[in-house]
Amino acid sequence: MMHFHIMTLFPEMVMAGLGTSITGRAIDRGLLSIDAVNIRDYAFNKHNSVDDYPYGGGAGMLMQAEPVYLTYEAIREKINSREGKEISKAPRVIYLSPQGKTFSQEMAEELAKEEDLILLCGHYEGIDERVLEEIVTDYVSIGDYVLTGGELPAMVMVDTISRLVPGVLHNDVSAEFESFQDHLLEYPQYSRPEIWHDKQVPPVLLSGHHANVEKWRREQSVIRTAKNRPDLLKKAQLTEAERKMLEEKGLLDDTI
Amino acid sequence: MMHFHIMTLFPEMVMAGLGTSITGRAIDRGLLSIDAVNIRDYAFNKHNSVDDYPYGGGAGMLMQAEPVYLTYEAIREKINSREGKEISKAPRVIYLSPQGKTFSQEMAEELAKEEDLILLCGHYEGIDERVLEEIVTDYVSIGDYVLTGGELPAMVMVDTISRLVPGVLHNDVSAEFESFQDHLLEYPQYSRPEIWHDKQVPPVLLSGHHANVEKWRREQSVIRTAKNRPDLLKKAQLTEAERKMLEEKGLLDDTI
Repeated sequence: MMHFHIMTLFPEMVMAGLGTSITGRAIDRGLLSIDAVNIRDYAFNKHNSVDDYPYGGGAGMLMQAEPVYLTYEAIREKINSREGKEISKAPRVIYLSPQGKTFSQEMAEELAKEEDLILLCGHYEGIDERVLEEIVTDYVSIGDYVLTGGELPAMVMVDTISRLVPGVLHNDVSAEFESFQDHLLEYPQYSRPEIWHDKQVPPVLLSGHHANVEKWRREQSVIRTAKNRPDLLKKAQLTEAERKMLEEKGLLDDTI
Repeated sequence: MMHFHIMTLFPEMVMAGLGTSITGRAIDRGLLSIDAVNIRDYAFNKHNSVDDYPYGGGAGMLMQAEPVYLTYEAIREKINSREGKEISKAPRVIYLSPQGKTFSQEMAEELAKEEDLILLCGHYEGIDERVLEEIVTDYVSIGDYVLTGGELPAMVMVDTISRLVPGVLHNDVSAEFESFQDHLLEYPQYSRPEIWHDKQVPPVLLSGHHANVEKWRREQSVIRTAKNRPDLLKKAQLTEAERKMLEEKGLLDDTI
């Protein structure tokens, strides 16, 4: 069982975004727990505020060190009391930040092995550096774009990692999804009816010939990856025949 | 005013994730509209289902072409009736998919110029290829990882693009955020108290000397980018003095 602890100013938003679909069902089945902890509950002043001006001036407000630290301590205590012992290994604490290492499927696989993961969502213009130095073990960015806060990135990470926790996906679905791990994009898919807006389902898919279907799908994946994401193709294991097919279509450049 | 139309099976989840904070305030101020349209409302059978088995076999279910198309047509009609004319330019339709071009701040800036954006969220194992061919103008991926559905990626895109719509951010905040556009990471920030857990705020930030503060911050940004994201630094405009400073610290490699 994997436990996610999300430190945030918007716990309802996080829970609403993760309660549906596969993640929600995994929680119901006891495979995951997701606990969104409100940093504001650990504000230490009468106004319940957690932010203040940055030293040295500048726009916007910063989240202060102390409420973030107290939230972290409360989560540590919760983990320790679950384990029934006073000291447990310090869990990894991920700060969602454009400064971080870019999130990837490989990183998700590594993180899915943890028993507890703490995700810290920044807001305002950031968080006091000193508490980051003290508690954060990993800085992670979901991509090169600027978001309002760390909540959506945390939800993206939880969704991606949850799918990799044993038992969360049905086996057949997880097999399907390996195709991405081969560094190839998905082949096109078709469902009923056979003809829609004058477009026919490719006949091979109606043939019932399993080996031909597989061959067609693999070929489509390779072509699509070459067209849309040649950078991924470099890492894929192509056969000689596939390289030749791409060459004939003018899709093989020097770098592949 | 910018209008986002999100085609999804989970409209409540999308609205819950976007109603808070900056995006929510921008909606209240009439700068944005976000409309999450339930594809299931356009199911054409008595079971209200929108999915079916894929031709050729394989795990999981596919979203069928027709309900997706009918949802799209309903959105087009809504846009046309707002414009008060029967034919308007076809809006861009973005399909969130690992097959897509990787989302970036540059792409967000380009998309922020649109008046209407339609975002199509896939679920199950994908969507019938024929409707994608017919309506989708852009395939976009938020990163190289696999998610349960397109909802979180759509929310990430809406949040990022919204911030770039004129008036949504206060001017001072948007100035701050230009720093990312210079291809440099944020400098460390500090707030009260001056000493926390024996850690002192860097004295320069307490000096009141504005030019020195700026110099220190820029230097910290450059150092941090060189350490964490040397790939970004290649695109940043460094001064000769900054290159020399990085060289002395052993942070300048041949590629920068």
